[in-house]
Amino acid sequence: MVNILLKIAYDGSNYHGWQRQINGMSIQQKVEESCFKLFRAKTNVLASSRTDTGVHALGQIAVIRAVIKMPLEMLPIALNSNLPYDIRILDAQIVEDSFHPIFNAKRKTYEYKIENSRIANPKLINYAEFEYHKLDYDKMVEASAFFLGEHDFAGFCSAKTVARTTVRTIYNLELKKEQELHKEGTIITITVTGSGFLYNMVRVIAGTLIYVGLGKIKPDNISDIILSKDRKRAGKTSRAQGLTLLNIEF
Amino acid sequence: MVNILLKIAYDGSNYHGWQRQINGMSIQQKVEESCFKLFRAKTNVLASSRTDTGVHALGQIAVIRAVIKMPLEMLPIALNSNLPYDIRILDAQIVEDSFHPIFNAKRKTYEYKIENSRIANPKLINYAEFEYHKLDYDKMVEASAFFLGEHDFAGFCSAKTVARTTVRTIYNLELKKEQELHKEGTIITITVTGSGFLYNMVRVIAGTLIYVGLGKIKPDNISDIILSKDRKRAGKTSRAQGLTLLNIEF
Repeated sequence: MVNILLKIAYDGSNYHGWQRQINGMSIQQKVEESCFKLFRAKTNVLASSRTDTGVHALGQIAVIRAVIKMPLEMLPIALNSNLPYDIRILDAQIVEDSFHPIFNAKRKTYEYKIENSRIANPKLINYAEFEYHKLDYDKMVEASAFFLGEHDFAGFCSAKTVARTTVRTIYNLELKKEQELHKEGTIITITVTGSGFLYNMVRVIAGTLIYVGLGKIKPDNISDIILSKDRKRAGKTSRAQGLTLLNIEF
Repeated sequence: MVNILLKIAYDGSNYHGWQRQINGMSIQQKVEESCFKLFRAKTNVLASSRTDTGVHALGQIAVIRAVIKMPLEMLPIALNSNLPYDIRILDAQIVEDSFHPIFNAKRKTYEYKIENSRIANPKLINYAEFEYHKLDYDKMVEASAFFLGEHDFAGFCSAKTVARTTVRTIYNLELKKEQELHKEGTIITITVTGSGFLYNMVRVIAGTLIYVGLGKIKPDNISDIILSKDRKRAGKTSRAQGLTLLNIEF
């Protein structure tokens, strides 16, 4: 038996999130079924992040314990042969027995996409938040700086959060704006790296930046809103579909 | 009754192409149903391009004849209210009675996306061709120049082509390469503008450029292959999913 780290990418559109559910198919269940077929043994797949319904991942990390009888580089290929195309194992590595995908995670990076245009691009339904009203991008960039550093983000998470502490550090928060192809709109991409994120935290930060772009919140009020720990003062929880888990560092 | 030009965007993933089918839902049927609900009259929606199953559009053009009792700028909103989110009417304009979406089309622009990486990105299943072997991008760029100008593209279309002439002019063919996010791969985007395209022509050009990238065809053989009018000498017909109709000029 060895402890194996798997790097996993998926399109969350057709799943009820990462975690196994009584009702509805999860990504975890698909990966566990693929492991069962390969190893002929019930295998628990423990992920670093529980992504919600509709959320995507290009760098989810999970750990399994298994007896492997093939070269390690063949493992992703073998597991992928039993997985649907919207879930792919990108990489497999043997890690120490003490390695834990949740407790050992040091930094996580997420990407959030916002489409700002008159009419929603049909190709982006499952991949972006849509905002009809014109967003003031420069104001959003100005606001983003106030999230950096260590803060108590109690006001930037769902009431369902069950964390020992709501203090998190944001190391980086960048915005990028692109012209939307042959349309008058733009795509704004938020990339955020932190020590960890509370439940819905990235989506509340994105929703708050949208409120800044709409003029509902002033950039220099962000610090006050964070300090208030009042969920009602932050922006809405933006759509799950705009979120992609990009990378986890250990 | 007036002749109305509609600009339409759609994600083709869930449809059996543009054109009405006995078996399977088409985009045309959805738009005609939306027109029927709005105008209370059977309405034929004639498009400029018949896109295949899985092909997308951000600038499809179609024409309807209807009696409209609302400001023209409200028409897209009214039609969209009866359409699924993966089909959007972007714009409506009144055009002359003589305007014909097929015969009056002067230039069409398509985009084709190729993912070149070790493992296919699950978010691109419906939006790109996938190529595992490393593509020589510079060779593909070199080859692309040989398609420019007026040529008989009899060898670059499906046997199902029913055109009076197989001569077409390509005005522009550009390639762009981007790093794929947090993966070792790249995305190659081909943008091509022509006087018109034969059935499967963009997909055969893309497939031929992939063969060039793989070293199966040399860039300076492209002219000979075009002149041969021999479908077997060109590359494969690449996946429909990588193709998006971007724009039509009249």
